[in-house]
Amino acid sequence: MELTHIEHIGIAVKSIEEQLPYYEGVLGLKCYNIETVEDQKVKTAFFQIGQTKIELLEPTSEESTVAKFIEKRGEGVHHIAFATNNLTEALQQAEEKGVRLIDSKPRAGAEGLNIAFLHPKSTGSVLTELCEHP
Amino acid sequence: MELTHIEHIGIAVKSIEEQLPYYEGVLGLKCYNIETVEDQKVKTAFFQIGQTKIELLEPTSEESTVAKFIEKRGEGVHHIAFATNNLTEALQQAEEKGVRLIDSKPRAGAEGLNIAFLHPKSTGSVLTELCEHP
Repeated sequence: MELTHIEHIGIAVKSIEEQLPYYEGVLGLKCYNIETVEDQKVKTAFFQIGQTKIELLEPTSEESTVAKFIEKRGEGVHHIAFATNNLTEALQQAEEKGVRLIDSKPRAGAEGLNIAFLHPKSTGSVLTELCEHP
Repeated sequence: MELTHIEHIGIAVKSIEEQLPYYEGVLGLKCYNIETVEDQKVKTAFFQIGQTKIELLEPTSEESTVAKFIEKRGEGVHHIAFATNNLTEALQQAEEKGVRLIDSKPRAGAEGLNIAFLHPKSTGSVLTELCEHP
């Protein structure tokens, strides 16, 4: 598949508010968007750095997969998202090569992107997202 | 501090060789360098994607902090590295803001970079590296 850059790094946090002094005050990044993704039961905060965004993920419910991630592994990097110009083709190519897909078709993600996740069993335990600007 | 981009994402793996079919064959990235960092007891493999590198970290000894990371948490994202044009100043600024430093001064890292790590206690549990091209 053809990937262009790392679109974002998703980081699981208990509280976005508690992390802002680090990301803004220490690293000097600017939070330009806070958005709730209802079907994922997370609040997200975005910071741009070069080509890439940092996406903080705060669970809004104990049912959220991010809440379960934090319970099991603690806060920290949750997933890496690669940008592609053709998500449908990238998913087909991954599947043909035996990669287990979490999403077999693109779906709507935060910030208006089309996204799909690959299963960490096929990616060396790194939860991996592919995404495309529509 | 002023950060320019994400220099690399470090990923702990048991075997670089076993991960190559995924990074090269599935994602379509090209491993352009394999390098052993003796004092960290790791073998590293680098892939460029946009501004950022993926750095696979394979422990060369059970004493390696990466071996201990894998034993405790399994394979997966080990650290994020941000690029800065002035590492010494960035470390001073972080320290002034109460960030706990693993390295209080720049030291030599892979690929000829000057690097220093911030302690995950101060960074929302994300092991964080700052690096500078000398």
